[in-house]
Amino acid sequence: MSDITDAKARERLIDMAAEFYDQFADGDIPHMDVPTRSKSNIVFDEDAGVWVYGDRTSTRSANSVRGARKLLKAVYTMEFLAQQLEENRSSTLRELYYLSESWDEEEAQFNTQSESNKLVEDLEIVSGVKREDFHMRPEESGAKVMGPLLLREQTRRGDRDIHCQEDVGQGGYQIPNDPDTIEFLDNDAEFVLCVETGGMRDRLVENGFDDEYDALVVHLGGQPARATRRLTKRLRDELDLPVVVFTDGDPWSYRIFGSVAYGSIKSAHLSEYLATPDAQFVGIRPEDIVEYDLPTDPLSDSDVNALESELEDPRFQTEYWTEQIELQLDIAKKAEQQALASRGLDFVTDTYLPERLDAMGVI
Amino acid sequence: MSDITDAKARERLIDMAAEFYDQFADGDIPHMDVPTRSKSNIVFDEDAGVWVYGDRTSTRSANSVRGARKLLKAVYTMEFLAQQLEENRSSTLRELYYLSESWDEEEAQFNTQSESNKLVEDLEIVSGVKREDFHMRPEESGAKVMGPLLLREQTRRGDRDIHCQEDVGQGGYQIPNDPDTIEFLDNDAEFVLCVETGGMRDRLVENGFDDEYDALVVHLGGQPARATRRLTKRLRDELDLPVVVFTDGDPWSYRIFGSVAYGSIKSAHLSEYLATPDAQFVGIRPEDIVEYDLPTDPLSDSDVNALESELEDPRFQTEYWTEQIELQLDIAKKAEQQALASRGLDFVTDTYLPERLDAMGVI
Repeated sequence: MSDITDAKARERLIDMAAEFYDQFADGDIPHMDVPTRSKSNIVFDEDAGVWVYGDRTSTRSANSVRGARKLLKAVYTMEFLAQQLEENRSSTLRELYYLSESWDEEEAQFNTQSESNKLVEDLEIVSGVKREDFHMRPEESGAKVMGPLLLREQTRRGDRDIHCQEDVGQGGYQIPNDPDTIEFLDNDAEFVLCVETGGMRDRLVENGFDDEYDALVVHLGGQPARATRRLTKRLRDELDLPVVVFTDGDPWSYRIFGSVAYGSIKSAHLSEYLATPDAQFVGIRPEDIVEYDLPTDPLSDSDVNALESELEDPRFQTEYWTEQIELQLDIAKKAEQQALASRGLDFVTDTYLPERLDAMGVI
Repeated sequence: MSDITDAKARERLIDMAAEFYDQFADGDIPHMDVPTRSKSNIVFDEDAGVWVYGDRTSTRSANSVRGARKLLKAVYTMEFLAQQLEENRSSTLRELYYLSESWDEEEAQFNTQSESNKLVEDLEIVSGVKREDFHMRPEESGAKVMGPLLLREQTRRGDRDIHCQEDVGQGGYQIPNDPDTIEFLDNDAEFVLCVETGGMRDRLVENGFDDEYDALVVHLGGQPARATRRLTKRLRDELDLPVVVFTDGDPWSYRIFGSVAYGSIKSAHLSEYLATPDAQFVGIRPEDIVEYDLPTDPLSDSDVNALESELEDPRFQTEYWTEQIELQLDIAKKAEQQALASRGLDFVTDTYLPERLDAMGVI
């Protein structure tokens, strides 16, 4: 999926609706084919280096009342999106759900928000247009950036030139909902460091790590928002910067790394747009827990299950991850990134990160 | 609690330690008295207009091994904080917990983070110095601000002058961990509008509500961080701006309002510093659910329990809240703020907020 203009996005919506007319004209029952969205239907795209949906599809057809109702909802949603684009407005997934209550045809209204969310994802996949290009904003905007980068953001109130160290407070630059409104003007950055927790992000900024190593510190804030992943991918592609990810040392955090590097199963149709395939994992590695003798917590049952499920996950079937996950199951321990503070507040910036980044060839 | 210098904060820490020496000298067993922190021990301070701790105290005494260990941990923490102030460093609560592993005396190390968190709160209360003044940062910084306000933030890299509309992107100005580093330079604001959800915050910004009504839109992001509450209070006190709070219409959101307006039970010792007693609740009121015929969800059992517990909460024992909560129990429904979208995307900014704010005498 590439960036497209509002007019083009609108055209694709109308094309999808026209398809139904063609099906009617041909005497076919109207239907829509959507890739099956499950772990068993994702495949590795060698060219793009990301995981995408495979060939299996599911069909939404008007050959049942239930199916016909689904297509009716799809058509109403297409109309709403087309109008939104025409008026240069935007809305959130939740607003769409509520807004459907104002539609004249009661059968077209959504019963739950997961229904409308899923429909918008279907439309993304079928149209090849990502929802941001339909002006569907996520509920929450992305996280924040600190580092030697001058950017221009196109806002509704005009362009803003912002340097992500000199023009922002200690909190950094707030990534907008749609980071494709950003243009990179200039930078002195050597690499991008994505950090899971706010506490660690603040530690790095306080210790001046972004300054000393010319790092762009991107706060992920747990499972990263689409906007954060998109910006990270653009920093990689457009500025040719290596991307490294620094999280807690537990299976949930490996998934955070996975969503940055490989894309998520739920949005594999967006992998090319959101994923940074050559992102590297800094740690906390199970190996680090041993090597740096970090304070740990025991693995819970659900941790063990999550690790075992990762061993089965095609995205984690590399030598590196198999080794690390098996080691972790073996030592039966996990550690948070802030556990590095047990060696002193500067250990992470004076010792751990320099050692790791050097070993990884990033600095 | 008022703002104090680093030197003064350090002095108070040393005074607390000196107290133990005095107790030894007097032949007393060392001890520390701390107000009892429960709902039954909060009282309304008429002068400040906030809820604070009452007269009941609990004593931590070295007359048992358990008590002695607590005081030992307190003394180690005081030493750490005093050193941190001297070096102009800062740290998070979680870092303190991990850092204790590096202390030479094993008995002084914390077993759980809730133990170290609670100790820091005890020290805040006994010393009358808030933890930000000990340079203990919260894990997460505050949320974000959009509106006609020019401020100066003192950062570790120098002062930054930032206008919260003209110098920021669509995401707004990111509130730093310690908002007392901010100085308000100039503003055209008429009032402060605190908003619970990111989706609604973005709706207001997209519709230009901050521009049209000269509102400072402060995103709360669920239960607001200390930094967000502190900034809100300062906007009220220093700029003399009315503060209104706009949340979902359910008991959990009334608690969000409560934490802005009344302070929380857990941090009643900070009410004077964090609470904005004359903050007003915009909605969603149970009355609005009826009046605007909003899409609703039924109350769950835990919603009903939470509402009933609010009826018992001294902070909610006003005519207004009793009426609203009883109405909600009666209609047995709740509504989200984004449910206003069922009347169209502009309804909230063209109709609902202007009507409510006019009725409240804010505009």
